[in-house]
Amino acid sequence: MKKVNTSPISGMQELLPEAQATFSKIRDGIAGVYRKHGFLNIETPIIDRCEILLAKAGGDTEKQIYKVVKTAEASEGADQALRFDHTVPLARYVVEHENDLKFPFKVSQIGRNFRGERAQKGRFREFYQCDVDVIGRGELPLYYDADVLMTALDALRSMELNTPIIARVSNRKIVTGMIEALNLQNQAADIYSIIDHSEKVPAEKTVEALDELGIGEKNRNKVLALMQLSGDVESVVQGLRELGISGEMFEDGVSELYAVVGMLEKAGYSEMVRADMRIVRGLDYYTGTVFEFCLPEYMGVGSIGGGGRYENLAEYFTDLKLPGVGASIGLSRLFYVLAENNLVKSQVDKVVDVAVVPITDNELSYAVKVAGQLLSEGKVVTVVASNKKLGDKLKYAAAIAKQGIVLGEAEAESGKYRIKEFN
Amino acid sequence: MKKVNTSPISGMQELLPEAQATFSKIRDGIAGVYRKHGFLNIETPIIDRCEILLAKAGGDTEKQIYKVVKTAEASEGADQALRFDHTVPLARYVVEHENDLKFPFKVSQIGRNFRGERAQKGRFREFYQCDVDVIGRGELPLYYDADVLMTALDALRSMELNTPIIARVSNRKIVTGMIEALNLQNQAADIYSIIDHSEKVPAEKTVEALDELGIGEKNRNKVLALMQLSGDVESVVQGLRELGISGEMFEDGVSELYAVVGMLEKAGYSEMVRADMRIVRGLDYYTGTVFEFCLPEYMGVGSIGGGGRYENLAEYFTDLKLPGVGASIGLSRLFYVLAENNLVKSQVDKVVDVAVVPITDNELSYAVKVAGQLLSEGKVVTVVASNKKLGDKLKYAAAIAKQGIVLGEAEAESGKYRIKEFN
Repeated sequence: MKKVNTSPISGMQELLPEAQATFSKIRDGIAGVYRKHGFLNIETPIIDRCEILLAKAGGDTEKQIYKVVKTAEASEGADQALRFDHTVPLARYVVEHENDLKFPFKVSQIGRNFRGERAQKGRFREFYQCDVDVIGRGELPLYYDADVLMTALDALRSMELNTPIIARVSNRKIVTGMIEALNLQNQAADIYSIIDHSEKVPAEKTVEALDELGIGEKNRNKVLALMQLSGDVESVVQGLRELGISGEMFEDGVSELYAVVGMLEKAGYSEMVRADMRIVRGLDYYTGTVFEFCLPEYMGVGSIGGGGRYENLAEYFTDLKLPGVGASIGLSRLFYVLAENNLVKSQVDKVVDVAVVPITDNELSYAVKVAGQLLSEGKVVTVVASNKKLGDKLKYAAAIAKQGIVLGEAEAESGKYRIKEFN
Repeated sequence: MKKVNTSPISGMQELLPEAQATFSKIRDGIAGVYRKHGFLNIETPIIDRCEILLAKAGGDTEKQIYKVVKTAEASEGADQALRFDHTVPLARYVVEHENDLKFPFKVSQIGRNFRGERAQKGRFREFYQCDVDVIGRGELPLYYDADVLMTALDALRSMELNTPIIARVSNRKIVTGMIEALNLQNQAADIYSIIDHSEKVPAEKTVEALDELGIGEKNRNKVLALMQLSGDVESVVQGLRELGISGEMFEDGVSELYAVVGMLEKAGYSEMVRADMRIVRGLDYYTGTVFEFCLPEYMGVGSIGGGGRYENLAEYFTDLKLPGVGASIGLSRLFYVLAENNLVKSQVDKVVDVAVVPITDNELSYAVKVAGQLLSEGKVVTVVASNKKLGDKLKYAAAIAKQGIVLGEAEAESGKYRIKEFN
């Protein structure tokens, strides 16, 4: 019957109405929690200038970006593209509207971003991200690192999933401080990368990779020891002390970690938060706190979000110093994991409360009147108009609605009707 | 201070947080009304195949479409583009998921669409459209034409604007039937175009344009007489009868118009609906009912939405006959008009209910505890952490929140605090 391929293009998450309702309920729940925590919602354009989007990006991001070209124009020199995250457009937004915003600017963004990466399970080319950020002008207290974490964790907790969700938290100053203290600056990028990949490769590969850097056994063992540290903040900080590393950067990192995770533990998030030195986050704009959200029972899928502190949000756009901290929930991937593993039961049964079924078109006006009445009472109502037999109409009504009202001549005259339960 | 141009690209509607809150409130209100009327919400991908998007389109649409090109690929032969409306992706969706849907399929779509047209006042390149459609399999009763109209009008009415909103309704079979009856088939496209443009040009231009078609004075006068007909459905139908035109197509159009507008008048929408023969809708896929939503006090801005009946939604994708009827509210343009004319007052004052202000970091943990308490009571709460003086913190708190709580040593010890009203 089909004349063309009507599947969505590869890498898209197209949902049937019931799954969409569940997805939207989760998304709206996240939005509600973000709002409750005092974050103002904004939406930036999906299309922006390449000059803005690629100001800092490079490597994979540049390769994955979708440029846009108007058909009527030459495709050479396309200077516009689709946003690939919420952070870069936010940087532009904050610089552009600086005078109209109040700092610290607590802001949320919920919407689709776009990356033309190779489609794989749980990775989408169009994907929803739900972000909170706090942007300071000149300075931004460390408290806001805890603020975005608590907000995102509250949002994740509000889903009431049947599987735990945790935030694994570290601070990049710790690794950077260790690298400085051990004089390994030349191997810094490699060390970050090895830590970042350590969970995706067998343990001996990590040892091999460190050995290949030629940093000596003692240093190698310190890096390995650091990577073992995971748990409540007291025990992790104690483990960090036992590494015997000194230096201001390292100390700053440890005390920031202690303050941020400690704040969360005290505020009732102990079950959901863990200090974990394997978290470094690939993107190089993070400068302090870094974290990832995971489902410990489903680690194979990778993180379902994360974030951290960046000392200078918009350094490519302005001389103004705008430190920020943000958290992002990768909703499309999260929803994929939940759906694949039946972790979220469909939260809507039938959407329609009452289907009003006129037997013939003679009762249609009366049916509309009855429907209007029920609507004004707050019900979800639909009128089933059809030239088909009553039996067929009722079958359809029962499939979409919880209750039905059949209206014939008698009902139209008397103004009285009975409500039929379909469930 | 700026290093680059940080304005959004031309044709984008980028809102400050307060305006965004108002916009979102309107959008969510529309979504709520659509849901109440039994429409299931879906979201289609923003990126789709050109083969799908351009199956039918031509002319302006083809010129305005944004193609997307992954940077890593050659820009030649881009075969994907951004959706320019909700109807074409819906056609693909219905064909793809036919077996999982129940027909008539009542569906809503709310999201951004993309057209690279020249930016002008109230016209955006990224624009929100809020659509409802009903798709039948094989057949679709006329009732659903009234259903989508009542639903969209309820959504518009829910905004409680200080200016009237009306639906101007016609039926393409009336004009087509007249053209057939008068044997003007060769001039059909021109006649449609002249009627479509008649409100944008002086009356004598319309007469001139009709005269240029060489259809004779009598026929010209019939077309002009038709275009005068506007008002309640009884008077318009009487006027149509007086034209003395016969033929099945014309009769069908008149009786469909009478049924659809009559249904709305009976159902309490008389104030918001008008039969109006100048409405034809440019897009050629409409085959019966057509309508536009307007703000009569702001006609200069053009329509703020519209829709109609299409006999075959997906004829390019399937052999299956899928008649449909849809209504679309152009939210970005509507919001632009409302904002420009102060027709919608900002529906949010301060977003934050309570700002909790610790005097020093010593009271920060206590502040988080107090905030958590208030959050659990349903309040919108933010903790104001800052190294600045208390006066500066209070100034910020007063700017963002309705109430403030200052927490010092005494409060932390006693666990008691006072609430300060900022308004």
